[in-house]
Amino acid sequence: MSTLTKQKIINDPVYGFIRIDDPIVFRVIEHPAYQRLRRIQQMALAQLVFPGAVHTRFQHSLGAYHLLSLALQELKNKGISLSAEEEIAVKLAVLLHDAGHGPFSHALEGLLVANMSHENISRLLMQHLIREIGGPEQMALAIFDNQYPRRFLHQLVSSQLDVDRMDYLMRDSFYTGVAEGIIGYDRILKMLTVANDELVVEEKAIYSIEKFIIARRLMYWQVYLHKTVLSAETMLQQIIRRARELCQQGIALHTSAALQYFLGTSTLDNASTSEWLNLFCQLDDTDVLMAVKSWCAHPDPVLAFLSRSLLNRKLFRLELSPQPFDQQRILHLQQQCLSKFSFLERETLHYLVYSGMASSYAYNPTDENIRIISKHGQIRDISEVENSLINHTVSIPIKKFYICYPKSLTEAMQ
Amino acid sequence: MSTLTKQKIINDPVYGFIRIDDPIVFRVIEHPAYQRLRRIQQMALAQLVFPGAVHTRFQHSLGAYHLLSLALQELKNKGISLSAEEEIAVKLAVLLHDAGHGPFSHALEGLLVANMSHENISRLLMQHLIREIGGPEQMALAIFDNQYPRRFLHQLVSSQLDVDRMDYLMRDSFYTGVAEGIIGYDRILKMLTVANDELVVEEKAIYSIEKFIIARRLMYWQVYLHKTVLSAETMLQQIIRRARELCQQGIALHTSAALQYFLGTSTLDNASTSEWLNLFCQLDDTDVLMAVKSWCAHPDPVLAFLSRSLLNRKLFRLELSPQPFDQQRILHLQQQCLSKFSFLERETLHYLVYSGMASSYAYNPTDENIRIISKHGQIRDISEVENSLINHTVSIPIKKFYICYPKSLTEAMQ
Amino acid sequence: MSTLTKQKIINDPVYGFIRIDDPIVFRVIEHPAYQRLRRIQQMALAQLVFPGAVHTRFQHSLGAYHLLSLALQELKNKGISLSAEEEIAVKLAVLLHDAGHGPFSHALEGLLVANMSHENISRLLMQHLIREIGGPEQMALAIFDNQYPRRFLHQLVSSQLDVDRMDYLMRDSFYTGVAEGIIGYDRILKMLTVANDELVVEEKAIYSIEKFIIARRLMYWQVYLHKTVLSAETMLQQIIRRARELCQQGIALHTSAALQYFLGTSTLDNASTSEWLNLFCQLDDTDVLMAVKSWCAHPDPVLAFLSRSLLNRKLFRLELSPQPFDQQRILHLQQQCLSKFSFLERETLHYLVYSGMASSYAYNPTDENIRIISKHGQIRDISEVENSLINHTVSIPIKKFYICYPKSLTEAMQ
Amino acid sequence: MSTLTKQKIINDPVYGFIRIDDPIVFRVIEHPAYQRLRRIQQMALAQLVFPGAVHTRFQHSLGAYHLLSLALQELKNKGISLSAEEEIAVKLAVLLHDAGHGPFSHALEGLLVANMSHENISRLLMQHLIREIGGPEQMALAIFDNQYPRRFLHQLVSSQLDVDRMDYLMRDSFYTGVAEGIIGYDRILKMLTVANDELVVEEKAIYSIEKFIIARRLMYWQVYLHKTVLSAETMLQQIIRRARELCQQGIALHTSAALQYFLGTSTLDNASTSEWLNLFCQLDDTDVLMAVKSWCAHPDPVLAFLSRSLLNRKLFRLELSPQPFDQQRILHLQQQCLSKFSFLERETLHYLVYSGMASSYAYNPTDENIRIISKHGQIRDISEVENSLINHTVSIPIKKFYICYPKSLTEAMQ
Repeated sequence: MSTLTKQKIINDPVYGFIRIDDPIVFRVIEHPAYQRLRRIQQMALAQLVFPGAVHTRFQHSLGAYHLLSLALQELKNKGISLSAEEEIAVKLAVLLHDAGHGPFSHALEGLLVANMSHENISRLLMQHLIREIGGPEQMALAIFDNQYPRRFLHQLVSSQLDVDRMDYLMRDSFYTGVAEGIIGYDRILKMLTVANDELVVEEKAIYSIEKFIIARRLMYWQVYLHKTVLSAETMLQQIIRRARELCQQGIALHTSAALQYFLGTSTLDNASTSEWLNLFCQLDDTDVLMAVKSWCAHPDPVLAFLSRSLLNRKLFRLELSPQPFDQQRILHLQQQCLSKFSFLERETLHYLVYSGMASSYAYNPTDENIRIISKHGQIRDISEVENSLINHTVSIPIKKFYICYPKSLTEAMQ
Repeated sequence: MSTLTKQKIINDPVYGFIRIDDPIVFRVIEHPAYQRLRRIQQMALAQLVFPGAVHTRFQHSLGAYHLLSLALQELKNKGISLSAEEEIAVKLAVLLHDAGHGPFSHALEGLLVANMSHENISRLLMQHLIREIGGPEQMALAIFDNQYPRRFLHQLVSSQLDVDRMDYLMRDSFYTGVAEGIIGYDRILKMLTVANDELVVEEKAIYSIEKFIIARRLMYWQVYLHKTVLSAETMLQQIIRRARELCQQGIALHTSAALQYFLGTSTLDNASTSEWLNLFCQLDDTDVLMAVKSWCAHPDPVLAFLSRSLLNRKLFRLELSPQPFDQQRILHLQQQCLSKFSFLERETLHYLVYSGMASSYAYNPTDENIRIISKHGQIRDISEVENSLINHTVSIPIKKFYICYPKSLTEAMQ
Repeated sequence: MSTLTKQKIINDPVYGFIRIDDPIVFRVIEHPAYQRLRRIQQMALAQLVFPGAVHTRFQHSLGAYHLLSLALQELKNKGISLSAEEEIAVKLAVLLHDAGHGPFSHALEGLLVANMSHENISRLLMQHLIREIGGPEQMALAIFDNQYPRRFLHQLVSSQLDVDRMDYLMRDSFYTGVAEGIIGYDRILKMLTVANDELVVEEKAIYSIEKFIIARRLMYWQVYLHKTVLSAETMLQQIIRRARELCQQGIALHTSAALQYFLGTSTLDNASTSEWLNLFCQLDDTDVLMAVKSWCAHPDPVLAFLSRSLLNRKLFRLELSPQPFDQQRILHLQQQCLSKFSFLERETLHYLVYSGMASSYAYNPTDENIRIISKHGQIRDISEVENSLINHTVSIPIKKFYICYPKSLTEAMQ
Repeated sequence: MSTLTKQKIINDPVYGFIRIDDPIVFRVIEHPAYQRLRRIQQMALAQLVFPGAVHTRFQHSLGAYHLLSLALQELKNKGISLSAEEEIAVKLAVLLHDAGHGPFSHALEGLLVANMSHENISRLLMQHLIREIGGPEQMALAIFDNQYPRRFLHQLVSSQLDVDRMDYLMRDSFYTGVAEGIIGYDRILKMLTVANDELVVEEKAIYSIEKFIIARRLMYWQVYLHKTVLSAETMLQQIIRRARELCQQGIALHTSAALQYFLGTSTLDNASTSEWLNLFCQLDDTDVLMAVKSWCAHPDPVLAFLSRSLLNRKLFRLELSPQPFDQQRILHLQQQCLSKFSFLERETLHYLVYSGMASSYAYNPTDENIRIISKHGQIRDISEVENSLINHTVSIPIKKFYICYPKSLTEAMQ
């Protein structure tokens, strides 16, 4: 058969089939740093509430790549030219946009791999992989960094209407069974076009866009920030914080070498980027989950209590409130906690009783906003279109405050 | 087999199976007046734009019945008691809520069967059928009329969160292929409860309700009031208006007897209700469609032109605008029309060039509103819940003005 | 916008969107002879058992066109060249393959339009339409007639693995809610290829093909030949037979002119093909359904009884048996019928008590069979592949005999 | 709220919602031994080919429980009485039927936890859990062991038409995206009934049952025994075999304590059952995956090579054949392997070049067969029903032989 037939087809439950037709893309997917994404769940601990939500960053990245391919095809059908180099560059940017996620993604972001956003790490990995595999390194990075003059390429990868969001809404809805997160991605993609090098949407897509924004709002409050999910994820954060504290006290943690490295005081500060990336790529959900399992029997009672509680799904109670919690309430709960758990001390109290804030907004008109183009070519922000549902009310971030503590506290009280 | 097994299961593509387990319900469905709903399409002429949307009032009524059965089961699970009579009464009210629709439903409502809403006719049919078949006539009518003290029964049948809307959104989405109209009906049903005899929804369903209201808004503007659909349906209205005019001039129309009766000056004014209902029940989409087909060759050139244009899908151009159209514009188009179509006269001009207004609102807080109950038992309108998307902006009805005329007018101009 | 964007997208609930990108295809769809297919239901009277199954030949033809487009794309990806003329010719052949269906399709085939198969009429229409609209008339007809040397083009249109079957299985499953008819059409399409100008399927698709054949078998016996569906469709045949008999006796039938023509002794034998086609195209389900409605009050009691029974879904009892029914049984039922229905006479008895045979086979290895190509290029009939489920057992046609009579006969007996 | 509302609803992407309404069932699900199933993937390494297939035994067990609940409801609707004790007993049997699966389920069954089937371990766990939590221990075990006189309860849990198979076909289809595995589970459940205490299916379900059996056949050969999946799973088996060998040579493996225990010579032979179960329950996919990750750098080159190959998806080539492979071929490949990999020795050669056999049958009429009941009450095996597709051909097990070796061998040759 001709070389034209050299393509790979991957089964995907969300879209049916995903077609890989470029050898560079294929080599990226085969690379261990990309295969690693099979071992990082997309939704961290949301599966403790939505048991179906065990899908991975690997699938999500492929899905975003698939939507990008469809979007590019639409734009080309509409006469927007793309060079072969631009096409592969933007595909690489999308494929690797999440490669820098550490174990449990957002739940541990900035905490386990301290002071590094996943975007920064994705950027480093993108650079290294493209150098190794071949491909338009400078252009891919420029697109990723929004330095490329044809800004719509960046906007496809990262904006309020990017293929990343479209895929995660579709995929997270599919896997959680919360069908309400489903969006009309095919309709939206068909309405995309480009004006002045910016991504814009035809006016008749406005109801689909509204639906997309509302779907995202619903998924945030009903799923991503579900109070039991929030409880589990903050417990995991407490475990990592405690482990790091013990590590810095020189107490043995019996983890994988890579996890040990990232929990420690980065003694490898003078590590080269490639050494650092190598260690990073060894780290995935397995390391953290195995550590939590082994810490169930750790001599430190705080680490062991948190680990056992999380592993066996004895999740803490989490209360939500539109206002910050009263300091008195927190002190009172901490007092109860001290009386109930003899292993606790004043210094470790904050591991079991803690408060925080979660926030989300449906639409932010100031950050890579969504632009609507009218039949007559007029371009406006979606919140300025008449009768738009996406108005200033929707743009205000919603904040919810929480307090979290072992359930047995209140059970004792009752 | 035992009598317990005496149940009927109907295949439904939207919900899988619909179970009929009450002999009275079964007899209603078997009745010719209900079977007639098989011959009335749910979405009138929307199929000219969405070819899949050929489903019928028969299926929709069964679907609403199915959702009602699920809702009643949920309420009973929550300890809300229902007498056997109440249960069958509310089921009859839902099953027959649309029985009074004439041919092409809303598209010809108030026009073909003049001065009668479909609800009024449904009420008459409900009364006659229950008398014939047996069942709690008074209670079913009281629920339908919102005269029954346990108001939640009426609200299940008819309110802004009733099983009618839930079914039509689900079903119309399914059949049009506009997946964005899909709602989380199962989630909403599980969150229904009753307080002070009113239907209320648990607070945590608020995002699902928002999604439901937005889905309805989307379906209105993207489907029900799609400008090509509006064009086709207004053309059908013009056909009926013209036919009635000719009928009153004594010109032969060659239609079915039933259609002839309703086009004529109700000479049967002294008909008994049962005679009238009998004639009404003989009328369905077939009569109108057959008439339109035969009118393609009618001697009246206006009727023939309109009929041929509709039948062969040579639909008029319809322009939409947020403001009423300028009178000059209309006059100009009419002038062109007169020049172009030699068969037209001043008196018949308005059949080919006409204007009007379509309007819809997403949520109306003053009419059988949606009530949210908090964990603490506080009940509020959904538009008053904090951070609610369903605020006053959404409650303002949107008006769109239209003007409609033969496409060949502008083609001539170009 | 550029001319590249001149494409039409049609919503389809089965596949999402169907894209029309050729102006000739677009003109065919706009033609009244194609628009007419909107008024012919795909599954005739199956909707009396499966209320959702009200879809039309219009949608099915578009769906088959869509699958063909996907198949051609796959073949082109595999390096099989197609001229622009071949591509449009095969698309026209598929689009119009069902244009020759009369009212209620198979249920009345050969009966209402006597002695003409729908394929023959489709062929005539194809010829006339292409002449009118433009396009490769000879090549389209050659492909349709299997006279074109590249036989795979005909096989895509008409064979045991054609896009017609794939679409009707998908679509009929979708609309009936019998999800078991769903097939892996996308997987099958991806496995198609061409060898020696014949359509073949890659070996690894064998399980998908088995599933396809089994799905078809299931749909035949569970849906298409469901005994209540068979009862309704044979009743409709009796109605048409009786109407023709009356017509030939000169009794007035009050039908549309087109229906009158086809019921009569074709007095227009010397009609030109285009006159005949013009009359044929005026005929759709509406004419027959309107006639049945009006015949409910026809003076002929047999026609009226049959019409009322069908319209109000008082369907006859139909018994199925693997053997022909005993002549005694039939005579006995006819005797009962004579006693029960005073309007009946010996000569009209056979309209109310009648017998017949339905038959289907899962796979026929002698007629446009399914060819599997191995990795090594060996081509075999699917029934010869080792471990194949599609063996000779499956190839034997199954025959089921039926007898049909008014339910009241047996009810009277009980 | 009343205690009636005390129920838990779990989101499931396959069925929508799963309702837990019995406190004993709820306590089983909350138990750490059941929560552990969240960490055992249903399809082992199939996700290396079907990236979506990352679902867990936790979901599958809940799904089987859900289908059982629906089946019991159907049987009760048909007048088959069930005591409250029988209902909870059969639910416990289904919920825990897979609790005895070790890491990577079937892929390592009998190998990692040597000489114990997962059913035996499930039985032990069932006994211990019910003792701890409460519930009809003896009856649940009798049902599980097919010792209970009402055999249909066992048959629902374990037979060729059990809820286990129905759920895994539905779920595995859903998560792999191989839609062809979808079955009409709801239709089949509605057709179940009981005769002589045996589970039987009404005759009209026969096509759905055929479809179910064919779907299973397809899933076996297209998914479960896909050659790349088989390659990955046999590689994992080689890893465990090598690790055990090293362990028995006293070489350090750096695994979790639980994994160390099961790899070692069960020194705890005199462990009590509860100690043994406790160790077993500490073991899940994490332990094995973490070990494979750490073994990538193990001093033993065979273990390290296999581990790196699997982790980074450099999977071995696996060839399938209907006949056993020629011994010469194997020897030749081994010879090549020795030349290519300097770290290999004669004794370790079989870890990199190995052969085996996979087998499956579509239907086995001798083992908990599927019984069809006719309208007249006659009961036959499905393979004896006339025109049945499920005949003796289908009942013959299919065997496929394989040989597996590093891809680089043949690449070197080319």
